[in-house]
Amino acid sequence: MVRDVSGREYLDFVAGAGSLNYGHNDPDMRDALISHLEQRGMSHSLDLSSSSKSAFLRAFESLVLLPRDLDYRVQFTGPTGANAVEAALKLARKVTGRTNVVAFTNGFHGVSLGALAATGNRHHRGGPQIPLPGVTRMPYDGYQGAGVDTADLLARMLQDPSSGLDAPAAILLETVQGEGGLNVASAGWLRRIAELARSSGALLVVDDIQAGCGRTGSFFSFEPYGIVPDLVVLSKSISGYGLPMALLLIRPEFDVWQPGEHNGTFRGNVHAFVTAQVALTKFWSDPTFTDEVARRADLLAVRLAEVADVVPDAVVKGRGMMRGVDVGSEELASAISRRCFGNGLMLETAGSHDQVVKVMAPLTTSDELLNRGMDILLAAAQSVGTGQSVGARRSVGPARDVLGASGLVPA
Amino acid sequence: MVRDVSGREYLDFVAGAGSLNYGHNDPDMRDALISHLEQRGMSHSLDLSSSSKSAFLRAFESLVLLPRDLDYRVQFTGPTGANAVEAALKLARKVTGRTNVVAFTNGFHGVSLGALAATGNRHHRGGPQIPLPGVTRMPYDGYQGAGVDTADLLARMLQDPSSGLDAPAAILLETVQGEGGLNVASAGWLRRIAELARSSGALLVVDDIQAGCGRTGSFFSFEPYGIVPDLVVLSKSISGYGLPMALLLIRPEFDVWQPGEHNGTFRGNVHAFVTAQVALTKFWSDPTFTDEVARRADLLAVRLAEVADVVPDAVVKGRGMMRGVDVGSEELASAISRRCFGNGLMLETAGSHDQVVKVMAPLTTSDELLNRGMDILLAAAQSVGTGQSVGARRSVGPARDVLGASGLVPA
Amino acid sequence: MVRDVSGREYLDFVAGAGSLNYGHNDPDMRDALISHLEQRGMSHSLDLSSSSKSAFLRAFESLVLLPRDLDYRVQFTGPTGANAVEAALKLARKVTGRTNVVAFTNGFHGVSLGALAATGNRHHRGGPQIPLPGVTRMPYDGYQGAGVDTADLLARMLQDPSSGLDAPAAILLETVQGEGGLNVASAGWLRRIAELARSSGALLVVDDIQAGCGRTGSFFSFEPYGIVPDLVVLSKSISGYGLPMALLLIRPEFDVWQPGEHNGTFRGNVHAFVTAQVALTKFWSDPTFTDEVARRADLLAVRLAEVADVVPDAVVKGRGMMRGVDVGSEELASAISRRCFGNGLMLETAGSHDQVVKVMAPLTTSDELLNRGMDILLAAAQSVGTGQSVGARRSVGPARDVLGASGLVPA
Amino acid sequence: MVRDVSGREYLDFVAGAGSLNYGHNDPDMRDALISHLEQRGMSHSLDLSSSSKSAFLRAFESLVLLPRDLDYRVQFTGPTGANAVEAALKLARKVTGRTNVVAFTNGFHGVSLGALAATGNRHHRGGPQIPLPGVTRMPYDGYQGAGVDTADLLARMLQDPSSGLDAPAAILLETVQGEGGLNVASAGWLRRIAELARSSGALLVVDDIQAGCGRTGSFFSFEPYGIVPDLVVLSKSISGYGLPMALLLIRPEFDVWQPGEHNGTFRGNVHAFVTAQVALTKFWSDPTFTDEVARRADLLAVRLAEVADVVPDAVVKGRGMMRGVDVGSEELASAISRRCFGNGLMLETAGSHDQVVKVMAPLTTSDELLNRGMDILLAAAQSVGTGQSVGARRSVGPARDVLGASGLVPA
Repeated sequence: MVRDVSGREYLDFVAGAGSLNYGHNDPDMRDALISHLEQRGMSHSLDLSSSSKSAFLRAFESLVLLPRDLDYRVQFTGPTGANAVEAALKLARKVTGRTNVVAFTNGFHGVSLGALAATGNRHHRGGPQIPLPGVTRMPYDGYQGAGVDTADLLARMLQDPSSGLDAPAAILLETVQGEGGLNVASAGWLRRIAELARSSGALLVVDDIQAGCGRTGSFFSFEPYGIVPDLVVLSKSISGYGLPMALLLIRPEFDVWQPGEHNGTFRGNVHAFVTAQVALTKFWSDPTFTDEVARRADLLAVRLAEVADVVPDAVVKGRGMMRGVDVGSEELASAISRRCFGNGLMLETAGSHDQVVKVMAPLTTSDELLNRGMDILLAAAQSVGTGQSVGARRSVGPARDVLGASGLVPA
Repeated sequence: MVRDVSGREYLDFVAGAGSLNYGHNDPDMRDALISHLEQRGMSHSLDLSSSSKSAFLRAFESLVLLPRDLDYRVQFTGPTGANAVEAALKLARKVTGRTNVVAFTNGFHGVSLGALAATGNRHHRGGPQIPLPGVTRMPYDGYQGAGVDTADLLARMLQDPSSGLDAPAAILLETVQGEGGLNVASAGWLRRIAELARSSGALLVVDDIQAGCGRTGSFFSFEPYGIVPDLVVLSKSISGYGLPMALLLIRPEFDVWQPGEHNGTFRGNVHAFVTAQVALTKFWSDPTFTDEVARRADLLAVRLAEVADVVPDAVVKGRGMMRGVDVGSEELASAISRRCFGNGLMLETAGSHDQVVKVMAPLTTSDELLNRGMDILLAAAQSVGTGQSVGARRSVGPARDVLGASGLVPA
Repeated sequence: MVRDVSGREYLDFVAGAGSLNYGHNDPDMRDALISHLEQRGMSHSLDLSSSSKSAFLRAFESLVLLPRDLDYRVQFTGPTGANAVEAALKLARKVTGRTNVVAFTNGFHGVSLGALAATGNRHHRGGPQIPLPGVTRMPYDGYQGAGVDTADLLARMLQDPSSGLDAPAAILLETVQGEGGLNVASAGWLRRIAELARSSGALLVVDDIQAGCGRTGSFFSFEPYGIVPDLVVLSKSISGYGLPMALLLIRPEFDVWQPGEHNGTFRGNVHAFVTAQVALTKFWSDPTFTDEVARRADLLAVRLAEVADVVPDAVVKGRGMMRGVDVGSEELASAISRRCFGNGLMLETAGSHDQVVKVMAPLTTSDELLNRGMDILLAAAQSVGTGQSVGARRSVGPARDVLGASGLVPA
Repeated sequence: MVRDVSGREYLDFVAGAGSLNYGHNDPDMRDALISHLEQRGMSHSLDLSSSSKSAFLRAFESLVLLPRDLDYRVQFTGPTGANAVEAALKLARKVTGRTNVVAFTNGFHGVSLGALAATGNRHHRGGPQIPLPGVTRMPYDGYQGAGVDTADLLARMLQDPSSGLDAPAAILLETVQGEGGLNVASAGWLRRIAELARSSGALLVVDDIQAGCGRTGSFFSFEPYGIVPDLVVLSKSISGYGLPMALLLIRPEFDVWQPGEHNGTFRGNVHAFVTAQVALTKFWSDPTFTDEVARRADLLAVRLAEVADVVPDAVVKGRGMMRGVDVGSEELASAISRRCFGNGLMLETAGSHDQVVKVMAPLTTSDELLNRGMDILLAAAQSVGTGQSVGARRSVGPARDVLGASGLVPA
């Protein structure tokens, strides 16, 4: 919950666009950070090792990688997801000696030039006024409708020497497209894409910036599918406390970096290492948290189905605690999110046309608060969906822009 | 000063590659941050306003912009310098409808794809294995030797319709090239480039990531020259405490962004706002700090001249507290920096061939510590410069890579 | 018919890859060219007007454009199809202010850098070792199998602002893909693509280099479909006599060229104007030729069906006099074409895997010679298709490479 | 001499922009072509060998390569200079595995996308509205004034790993820049560039499209300097008769093409082979022609000096029979060329600002006609240079655009 300058409280189901999976101000992380500050711990360490970094790395190895039988090297890139995506694409090109990257419709991977080339959003792509080279766009799972397996098209173009698809360095995807509208790739499609990457000599890169760190139920979003990406990008909730941090996980055989080749000033954000280590230890040492998230995700799914029921043609989308309702139009989604905000619930919209009302409640949200939030959403959908209050207004951009002036602080 | 795991102390004259201009763990910033944490202040606020952000913006306006009669809008980009450079280039291209950007030999602007196109360093440029479009490289001031004004070449190519120089969206430069080897542009050259930008319809973009925030003496490195850039990039020391933060300053007439066009998850790093506001208030409210830095910079210049005296053909380079000695070869520079490290002084090397020993002491370093550090450097230069100990070893990369395993903490 | 140095004769069903639609050495064109030479007519006229050029333009206007109710300006580009494609893409980008071009799987548009970006063939794309920017590849009609209308995908990506498809300057296509394997676009698909171009503000560019000049039955390949491209590229048979010549047809409202913007030394190949004018006058003044080609195309279709019948799973492809048989593998296609060559018939192969035996007989081929050629092909297919003689050999490249040493002259 | 439709005669000192070095309608070439036509020789042969092609290749080997001790493979590219430049850049990138190409200010190499990237002219560069990747622009010899050796800058940037100059695949240059304004590279500069290419692992590519085929006195423009390019591009006058033809000469060790990798429909323009073989045999079998051209070039130089004398600040530029006068402004150059045209002399202008009056008389021009033309030019310069008749008019584009409507035929 956050509170604005007037003291009014809001349920925050935006969660820092997925950066606050453990909520605002987890007390253990806060205490650890205060303690670090009081002991005059470093804040900034470039790429030097430090005891905080080492502690994080040990926790990541023992709590995340080992139990999942995964073998990755951890690269600390500049502390934004986009930077880690840039590093991933660079590395894949270096490993393969190829330049092309396959990315998908509705994918979102950041707005720096290399990452933006892979991002589908036209609003963002228009910024640089320069062609965005080195990416071939393919339809995501389901993009051509139920009857068409879009992996067939990729398979065909990969094997057809006249297809115009240059041999790819990487296939880059999200298993659930967050900004793209909570589109969920099926297990079969993901396995097929993984196999196509392997057979075509491309690295499989999973952008788990938004879907990772437990958002879909498991630590990595791809765990349920038995695929092992060659590179994995993590950011957003990896620090646990909303601090800037990003990682690139690299299968050891692909770590061909020369020293300092992809550098950056803020790779060593020690505060983030401190809170990240606490987050892993607190939530990922045993299955309690995972089980709880799974149960809560089911609750969310049930409640969202109720919302979808009151909006004509609405569809529930997403997976785990990364879900929402496609209400069919930006106008409707925006009206619902505004009404929710008026009643104390912060929500984002997503999707090609911002037509999806997106629930990104912290994974730690209690059932009581989750239900309270969903009650607000359901009421908003009922009143708006039945046309009581939409009016003629035309919103611009996602709901969070509306909030710009409110001076929020966590409640 | 920092201390390694064995308790050994080091003078840190790297200062987070310029991110720690006020040293490690300034107590006022630390207290403010602890207080923010204890009051359960937000850590992550996307692009929402917050009281911490507002306080920073007020301080920046009143303490930095107004006294210098500057009128800029402040954009919070993703919290890395590279990201702010990406935003600057995007914006300049959007404003002008042109794609080309003029950047200079030995310039360093980051390693994400758009920024990397402007960066000169071949080691970094090789990473993405893909041509880096949209940048024309021109020789920096002094690059063609004393007799040649390189601005003449730019002037000629701009006015020559057959030169092959496409009309530029931006001219991007550092007034002192930090990574490039502490090359200092002259006042005349800078004014001429500013005039060429104006007359050719290009935006003048100053990358003040390393040279800004007081490093050269004034808050902005360009203040002494009477030029007013159209866009200014700040990062590194802007948070004051080494936390990830970056700003793009935009002359109001060029703020043509649409909402959310250049977005990013960590634009609202509230902790950095908290410490940045303290840093501005503490150091930039009156001329005391500036005067002190000026005096200390003179001391540094004197001491570096002593160092240069003991190394054949060595030259002092840089400006303000951003200085060093070009000792002529990477081998020698590396030998000196290693010897310094052995004697408790951390230093970086810079330049085309890592041939410049670079002193980036915190601006707050006491004369006593500065002298102590310079004594160590002088002794190292004496022993190494006279060939006593260089040996046959060949170093790889800058000195900081050597330190990787030492587990440093601030002393 | 052509004859090799030993005097041996061959039926030439390659026809200069479509440059000799009227056969070798049409006597009227030859006489006109000899007469031009004897009268000391110019050979090279840059972009100056000349009486030969004017005569051609008058013929083109009165015999080609006016009867079809088409209104185009005629640009003489450099005398190769690739150059005219370069001009078309440049112009479309200039008209729209956009950079992206939609091109299709298996499309072939030439190998200069701008045209190559639109060409699908990986063998050719690999040449420049540089990404080929500014083109988005989409599946051609039928590429995803019978059940999928690939225009749906383009439609969806055009209207979806997150699809990653940047607004296109042009949609570039062949109505029959010659090098790509004689793939024929359906009328419905072409009309839909034309409508998508219109609604998305892109110019529709038809590359009629190979399919134009009567090859598919009508002068332009797109005539039967009621679509009017914004730009049309002609080359190959436009000179009638196999001389280098290329045209770009431009709807008047899109002729935004500045003087000399797309120039070239050999735009004024006067010899080609001379023969081209004869070709238009001789063959396109009345419907006789068109009717004859239509009749002959039916004969060809019947004969090719016989060939397909004797090769398991073979399929007849193409349209008009631009047809062939997909025999399923390069090995088989190559074996058939070699056997034909041994028996006095020259043929090319085409398609993604060179698996299509392609018949490009001159449109003027007599029924007797056409039947003679088809008899040879049928016999070759019978012997090879039944495995009598394929052997273990593996061919490299199309059949014409085999002929390299034979020193052919027209018989 | 050419004649317009009204029968008026003109001296043609444009010579097809260098395509008519042997004048219009050389009778021996014409007779050979008529004979070829009468014997029903092929016109179009793709990449098949033919007796005409073989005869040309034998002549080229024995009359051009062997006497100069040069060892090149001959590639027939598409029949335009731009296409051969495209092939050269592709091949250099393929050989080196690098993408960058160094090209020079005021260079002109054609307008297809790959060649255009290397061309300096802004008017042409603006066409495609797309960045032109893969080329770094460097100042040509003399571009920075008399005191600066621009090869120093290239040398420095090549050896400086932070210069931003990516290791080049090729260094591409004209020894005399035709369109760029008759700028002549010095022997020392050319040798130094050749050495820099060698030492940096780049291929030296000489674009001899305009300066080759005897235009500067020797067959290749680089002969006097003792440099041996790795690749040489020939076009324009190589056919001798103004017919489209282009060659790429490749040092054997760099012929890494796969079959058909750089293809094109009109590589086998047999008519051009026929006339080209006659041209070589007639003019290059013994030194007579070369001696004659040398003598005539001296005459031209003397006469141009007279022209320069009557225009304030005018300078004679160029080399051999590729010379002109820089009269300082487009206005003046245009006025002079128009006055010449009024008096029966066709001339082009060239240079960054079209400020150079360019004399490209056929190499076979008699002294009498050369003097007659120069008399006209001198008179024009006298009247215009002294301001008698310039007026306020502003010309657009080179002189030849003015002539567009006159319907010229060779006299």
